Amino acid sequence: MASLDDIIKQNSENTQRIIRHAQGYVIANNTNGTIAATSYDNVISASINKLINGILVGAARSAVRDLDCTNDLAFLRVATQKCEYLVAPEEDFTIVVVQGK
Amino acid sequence: MASLDDIIKQNSENTQRIIRHAQGYVIANNTNGTIAATSYDNVISASINKLINGILVGAARSAVRDLDCTNDLAFLRVATQKCEYLVAPEEDFTIVVVQGK
Repeated sequence: MASLDDIIKQNSENTQRIIRHAQGYVIANNTNGTIAATSYDNVISASINKLINGILVGAARSAVRDLDCTNDLAFLRVATQKCEYLVAPEEDFTIVVVQGK
Repeated sequence: MASLDDIIKQNSENTQRIIRHAQGYVIANNTNGTIAATSYDNVISASINKLINGILVGAARSAVRDLDCTNDLAFLRVATQKCEYLVAPEEDFTIVVVQGK
Protein backbone atom coordinates (compact mmCIF):
# COMPACT_ATOMS: atom_id res chain seq x y z
CA MET A 1 0.00 0.00 0.00
CA ALA A 2 1.30 3.47 -0.95
CA SER A 3 1.71 5.82 2.00
CA LEU A 4 -0.43 8.94 2.19
CA ASP A 5 2.68 11.15 1.95
CA ASP A 6 3.70 9.45 -1.31
CA ILE A 7 0.24 9.95 -2.79
CA ILE A 8 0.16 13.62 -1.76
CA LYS A 9 3.60 14.19 -3.31
CA GLN A 10 2.59 12.43 -6.54
CA ASN A 11 -0.49 14.67 -6.77
CA SER A 12 0.94 17.86 -5.30
CA GLU A 13 -0.52 20.17 -7.96
CA ASN A 14 -4.07 18.87 -7.50
CA THR A 15 -3.65 18.64 -3.73
CA GLN A 16 -2.62 22.29 -3.51
CA ARG A 17 -5.48 23.41 -5.74
CA ILE A 18 -8.07 21.48 -3.73
CA ILE A 19 -6.75 22.69 -0.36
CA ARG A 20 -6.90 26.34 -1.52
CA HIS A 21 -10.65 26.07 -2.31
CA ALA A 22 -11.67 23.82 0.55
CA GLN A 23 -13.21 24.61 3.92
CA GLY A 24 -11.66 21.41 5.19
CA TYR A 25 -10.92 17.76 4.49
CA VAL A 26 -10.85 14.31 6.07
CA ILE A 27 -8.75 11.49 4.62
CA ALA A 28 -9.58 8.04 5.97
CA ASN A 29 -7.52 4.88 5.69
CA ASN A 30 -9.78 2.23 4.13
CA THR A 31 -7.81 -0.70 5.59
CA ASN A 32 -8.54 0.05 9.23
CA GLY A 33 -11.09 2.91 9.10
CA THR A 34 -8.82 5.33 10.95
CA ILE A 35 -8.31 8.97 9.98
CA ALA A 36 -5.02 9.47 8.12
CA ALA A 37 -5.21 13.26 7.83
CA THR A 38 -7.77 15.93 8.63
CA SER A 39 -8.19 19.67 9.01
CA TYR A 40 -11.02 19.27 11.56
CA ASP A 41 -11.01 18.44 15.26
CA ASN A 42 -11.45 14.85 16.47
CA VAL A 43 -15.23 15.01 16.95
CA ILE A 44 -16.06 16.48 13.54
CA SER A 45 -13.49 14.26 11.78
CA ALA A 46 -14.98 11.16 13.39
CA SER A 47 -18.53 12.24 12.42
CA ILE A 48 -17.57 12.88 8.81
CA ASN A 49 -15.64 9.60 8.68
CA LYS A 50 -18.56 7.61 10.08
CA LEU A 51 -21.46 9.31 8.25
CA ILE A 52 -19.94 10.12 4.85
CA ASN A 53 -17.18 7.52 4.41
CA GLY A 54 -18.93 4.74 6.28
CA ILE A 55 -22.68 4.93 5.80
CA LEU A 56 -23.13 7.11 2.70
CA VAL A 57 -20.33 5.69 0.52
CA GLY A 58 -21.52 2.19 1.46
CA ALA A 59 -25.12 3.03 0.51
CA ALA A 60 -24.04 4.65 -2.78
CA ARG A 61 -21.80 1.71 -3.72
CA SER A 62 -24.60 -0.76 -2.92
CA ALA A 63 -27.15 1.20 -4.97
CA VAL A 64 -24.82 1.47 -8.00
CA ARG A 65 -23.97 -2.26 -7.92
CA ASP A 66 -27.57 -3.31 -7.34
CA LEU A 67 -28.62 -1.32 -10.43
CA ASP A 68 -25.79 -2.84 -12.52
CA CYS A 69 -23.54 -5.47 -10.96
CA THR A 70 -20.75 -4.71 -13.48
CA ASN A 71 -20.67 -1.02 -12.46
CA ASP A 72 -18.98 0.64 -9.47
CA LEU A 73 -19.01 3.94 -7.62
CA ALA A 74 -16.35 6.41 -8.80
CA PHE A 75 -17.10 9.71 -7.07
CA LEU A 76 -19.83 11.29 -4.97
CA ARG A 77 -20.85 14.95 -4.69
CA VAL A 78 -23.31 15.89 -1.96
CA ALA A 79 -24.49 19.47 -2.42
CA THR A 80 -26.17 20.95 0.66
CA GLN A 81 -27.65 24.34 1.47
CA LYS A 82 -24.43 25.38 3.24
CA CYS A 83 -21.57 23.48 1.60
CA GLU A 84 -20.64 20.67 -0.75
CA TYR A 85 -19.05 17.35 0.25
CA LEU A 86 -16.79 15.92 -2.46
CA VAL A 87 -16.07 12.26 -1.82
CA ALA A 88 -13.40 10.26 -3.64
CA PRO A 89 -13.44 6.59 -2.58
CA GLU A 90 -9.96 5.56 -3.73
CA GLU A 91 -8.39 2.13 -3.23
CA ASP A 92 -6.32 2.84 -0.11
CA PHE A 93 -7.93 6.05 1.14
CA THR A 94 -11.32 7.75 1.08
CA ILE A 95 -11.00 11.51 0.68
CA VAL A 96 -13.74 13.93 1.72
CA VAL A 97 -13.26 17.59 0.80
CA VAL A 98 -15.74 20.15 2.14
CA GLN A 99 -16.22 23.18 -0.12
CA GLY A 100 -18.15 26.36 0.55
CA LYS A 101 -20.96 27.39 -1.77
CA MET B 1 -49.13 20.67 -5.09
CA ALA B 2 -48.07 21.75 -8.59
CA SER B 3 -48.66 19.11 -11.23
CA LEU B 4 -45.68 17.61 -13.03
CA ASP B 5 -46.86 19.05 -16.36
CA ASP B 6 -46.94 22.57 -14.86
CA ILE B 7 -43.41 22.18 -13.52
CA ILE B 8 -42.10 20.86 -16.85
CA LYS B 9 -43.73 23.78 -18.69
CA GLN B 10 -42.29 26.32 -16.23
CA ASN B 11 -38.82 24.84 -16.75
CA SER B 12 -39.09 23.90 -20.41
CA GLU B 13 -35.68 25.30 -21.40
CA ASN B 14 -33.84 23.35 -18.69
CA THR B 15 -36.00 20.27 -19.24
CA GLN B 16 -35.16 20.19 -22.95
CA ARG B 17 -31.43 20.69 -22.30
CA ILE B 18 -31.34 17.90 -19.71
CA ILE B 19 -33.30 15.45 -21.86
CA ARG B 20 -30.94 16.02 -24.83
CA HIS B 21 -27.88 14.99 -22.77
CA ALA B 22 -29.48 12.23 -20.72
CA GLN B 23 -29.50 8.47 -21.17
CA GLY B 24 -32.74 8.43 -19.26
CA TYR B 25 -34.68 9.75 -16.29
CA VAL B 26 -37.07 8.78 -13.51
CA ILE B 27 -39.31 11.33 -11.78
CA ALA B 28 -40.91 10.13 -8.56
CA ASN B 29 -43.82 11.67 -6.70
CA ASN B 30 -42.63 12.25 -3.12
CA THR B 31 -46.15 12.20 -1.65
CA ASN B 32 -46.92 8.58 -2.48
CA GLY B 33 -43.59 7.21 -3.80
CA THR B 34 -45.03 6.39 -7.22
CA ILE B 35 -43.27 7.09 -10.51
CA ALA B 36 -44.68 10.20 -12.20
CA ALA B 37 -42.63 9.97 -15.41
CA THR B 38 -39.82 7.79 -16.69
CA SER B 39 -37.94 6.88 -19.83
CA TYR B 40 -37.15 3.36 -18.55
CA ASP B 41 -39.24 0.20 -18.34
CA ASN B 42 -41.14 -0.69 -15.14
CA VAL B 43 -38.42 -2.89 -13.62
CA ILE B 44 -35.54 -0.42 -14.06
CA SER B 45 -37.72 2.54 -13.03
CA ALA B 46 -38.77 0.76 -9.85
CA SER B 47 -35.15 -0.17 -9.05
CA ILE B 48 -33.91 3.40 -9.55
CA ASN B 49 -36.84 4.75 -7.54
CA LYS B 50 -36.21 2.36 -4.64
CA LEU B 51 -32.39 2.43 -4.55
CA ILE B 52 -31.60 6.05 -5.49
CA ASN B 53 -34.70 7.99 -4.41
CA GLY B 54 -35.53 5.83 -1.43
CA ILE B 55 -32.38 4.48 0.18
CA LEU B 56 -29.61 6.78 -1.10
CA VAL B 57 -31.39 10.14 -0.83
CA GLY B 58 -32.55 9.14 2.66
CA ALA B 59 -29.01 8.19 3.70
CA ALA B 60 -27.55 11.41 2.24
CA ARG B 61 -30.18 13.60 3.92
CA SER B 62 -29.59 11.85 7.28
CA ALA B 63 -25.81 12.25 7.00
CA VAL B 64 -26.06 15.96 6.11
CA ARG B 65 -28.48 16.68 8.99
CA ASP B 66 -26.50 14.59 11.49
CA LEU B 67 -23.37 16.63 10.64
CA ASP B 68 -25.26 19.94 10.97
CA CYS B 69 -28.90 19.90 12.04
CA THR B 70 -29.51 23.33 10.43
CA ASN B 71 -28.31 22.09 7.02
CA ASP B 72 -30.19 20.07 4.36
CA LEU B 73 -29.47 18.09 1.22
CA ALA B 74 -29.78 20.10 -2.00
CA PHE B 75 -28.46 17.87 -4.79
CA LEU B 76 -26.62 14.59 -5.21
CA ARG B 77 -24.26 13.48 -7.99
CA VAL B 78 -23.22 9.84 -8.08
CA ALA B 79 -20.44 9.31 -10.62
CA THR B 80 -19.90 5.67 -11.57
CA GLN B 81 -17.57 3.91 -13.98
CA LYS B 82 -20.33 3.74 -16.61
CA CYS B 83 -22.63 6.72 -16.03
CA GLU B 84 -23.56 9.52 -13.66
CA TYR B 85 -26.78 9.73 -11.61
CA LEU B 86 -27.91 13.33 -11.02
CA VAL B 87 -30.46 13.47 -8.21
CA ALA B 88 -32.58 16.53 -7.44
CA PRO B 89 -34.76 15.99 -4.34
CA GLU B 90 -37.33 18.73 -4.87
CA GLU B 91 -40.35 19.35 -2.65
CA ASP B 92 -43.02 17.53 -4.66
CA PHE B 93 -40.89 15.34 -6.92
CA THR B 94 -37.49 13.63 -6.83
CA ILE B 95 -35.80 13.73 -10.23
CA VAL B 96 -33.07 11.28 -11.26
CA VAL B 97 -31.30 11.92 -14.55
CA VAL B 98 -28.84 9.32 -15.86
CA GLN B 99 -26.04 10.76 -17.99
CA GLY B 100 -23.38 8.92 -19.99
CA LYS B 101 -19.71 9.55 -19.27
